Amino acid sequence: MRVIVDAMGGDNAPLEIVKGCAAAVGELGVEILLYGDRDKLDGIFDGTGLSREGITVIHAPDVIEMEDDPGISIRSKKNSSMVMALTALAAGEGDAFVTAGSTGAALAGATLIVKRIKGVKRAALAPLLPGKKGPVLLIDCGANVECKPEYLEQFGVMGSVYMDKIVGVKNPRVGLINIGTEPTKGGDLQREAHRLLGESKANFVGNIEPREIMMGACDVAVADGFTGNVVLKTIEGMAKFFTSALKDLFYESLVTKLSALGVKKGLARFKKTMDYKETGGAPFIGVSKPVIKAHGSSDARSFCSAIRQAKIYAESGMIEQIAEYYSVTSEKK
Amino acid sequence: MRVIVDAMGGDNAPLEIVKGCAAAVGELGVEILLYGDRDKLDGIFDGTGLSREGITVIHAPDVIEMEDDPGISIRSKKNSSMVMALTALAAGEGDAFVTAGSTGAALAGATLIVKRIKGVKRAALAPLLPGKKGPVLLIDCGANVECKPEYLEQFGVMGSVYMDKIVGVKNPRVGLINIGTEPTKGGDLQREAHRLLGESKANFVGNIEPREIMMGACDVAVADGFTGNVVLKTIEGMAKFFTSALKDLFYESLVTKLSALGVKKGLARFKKTMDYKETGGAPFIGVSKPVIKAHGSSDARSFCSAIRQAKIYAESGMIEQIAEYYSVTSEKK
Repeated sequence: MRVIVDAMGGDNAPLEIVKGCAAAVGELGVEILLYGDRDKLDGIFDGTGLSREGITVIHAPDVIEMEDDPGISIRSKKNSSMVMALTALAAGEGDAFVTAGSTGAALAGATLIVKRIKGVKRAALAPLLPGKKGPVLLIDCGANVECKPEYLEQFGVMGSVYMDKIVGVKNPRVGLINIGTEPTKGGDLQREAHRLLGESKANFVGNIEPREIMMGACDVAVADGFTGNVVLKTIEGMAKFFTSALKDLFYESLVTKLSALGVKKGLARFKKTMDYKETGGAPFIGVSKPVIKAHGSSDARSFCSAIRQAKIYAESGMIEQIAEYYSVTSEKK
Repeated sequence: MRVIVDAMGGDNAPLEIVKGCAAAVGELGVEILLYGDRDKLDGIFDGTGLSREGITVIHAPDVIEMEDDPGISIRSKKNSSMVMALTALAAGEGDAFVTAGSTGAALAGATLIVKRIKGVKRAALAPLLPGKKGPVLLIDCGANVECKPEYLEQFGVMGSVYMDKIVGVKNPRVGLINIGTEPTKGGDLQREAHRLLGESKANFVGNIEPREIMMGACDVAVADGFTGNVVLKTIEGMAKFFTSALKDLFYESLVTKLSALGVKKGLARFKKTMDYKETGGAPFIGVSKPVIKAHGSSDARSFCSAIRQAKIYAESGMIEQIAEYYSVTSEKK
């Protein structure tokens, strides 16, 4: 298993990325193709004394920055770590790709260079949310701001395969995020997507109101990228809001500080559940090779988790299953 | 000050509504016109011994149920408590209207019977969220599933007047809910609304990502009704999720139970902040008379708060200010 890595993407690149790769080689037994500025990467290996075992550095002189236009930079920055790495993935030089760089550029690059699975209309970014009764896949959460109903239907089908093959949830329940449970709720997009999902091979359980997503009403929550991103960022905001409120609460007096000690372990466990670093990253589902977007603020531990996810993804046979499904359905038509 | 009340709307109607009205008469010095089934209401007064002082019962034999189609029921159920009450409001028999009944029917009725302020394109449902640095008005949160950019511009302007006149926030900061801060983010609706809000008389601070709403990035958060409803319901869901997680945490062992005692007061205060019952209800902003939608699960305390809100709304001069603004701007055109 060889994982291709963009060494230069993310807030803590390249140091934490390199550390994460070294950890992944040791823990997961993967090989790494590391794309980035050779001088900087050599400097890190020399300075930290990290082992180069299993890691091949490939020089990429350029970097796609967060403020670059995704589509333009993918076309113009041919020598960037992102473009060179994706080109290597498309050429079969590795089995999966992980980046903590620009989400937009990773999506544009995955679509333009690696291409979508035949028959798939749009690739989607799909993070796993830490739901009360187990992980919930939110698909799409920002790759496609404006969607057609048939994209949402495909998100439901592809998300089901992901939950089955990678998370191990059999016959995953697919819900459509909407502002009411009745099939007539929402706009034209939701009403038509509801109909298409009902006719699809997904185990569609109907509309899901956003307050039920984290409570375990479905395993796959389908939305257009705008709505999914709003849900994700509201969840993030509320996690921040509650953490801050709890902190204020526990710092109030000596009694509350002692109380904080009593629940310290439990709180740490809860914080861990809510933490991105443990889940690693979010896959772009629908691309013809595994592409994992690690969180922009990834540290070594988090990046290593994203590499683990990429390995599982590549070994799962998920892409083959989606490709087979859409080759059969397109023949039928 | 005379407040018109729909006695028959909400999960706990009519008992809790009647109790809330009796409390409001005592605490706020308002008069109440109570629309509902006379036999049932008389039975409550007789059974509970609540004072009828300040409360006039007006018989309305019919009820709009939650499952009724809003537009159709407003047109066909002329003898329902909702329609009779709204008709009385339109005729000037009272200064404001409060209902815990169907949101859709209240909106349809307010628009059809009471009418919008001249120049206002759409009325919006606008609850106050308990933000970290003070209340945040979320406008719209479900009245208008599909919106045009100019509606969003008006929501920003009207929301500003509400925060100024009723909540007492001077020069309120207006943000547009979007999936990124740059003006080019989102779909056509957001990009055009961003431009219009920038040119409006509102103190527009630009796009607000959903994770910043509760943290105090703006005083008025503008969205189409679909997006606003998704935000509201995700916030509700997360409140439920965290409460449930905390409960599990505190019930774990004797030590954690003791810890729970130490922060009991603080937790109760926090729960109160997150509680609808204290904020009462959400106004329909843009209607030519004050219409307040109390939460469907309102109890007496909550309903009394909604009546307090209606009183403040009616006394604020807010509707006159919006009417004046739009009469001037429409003359200009």
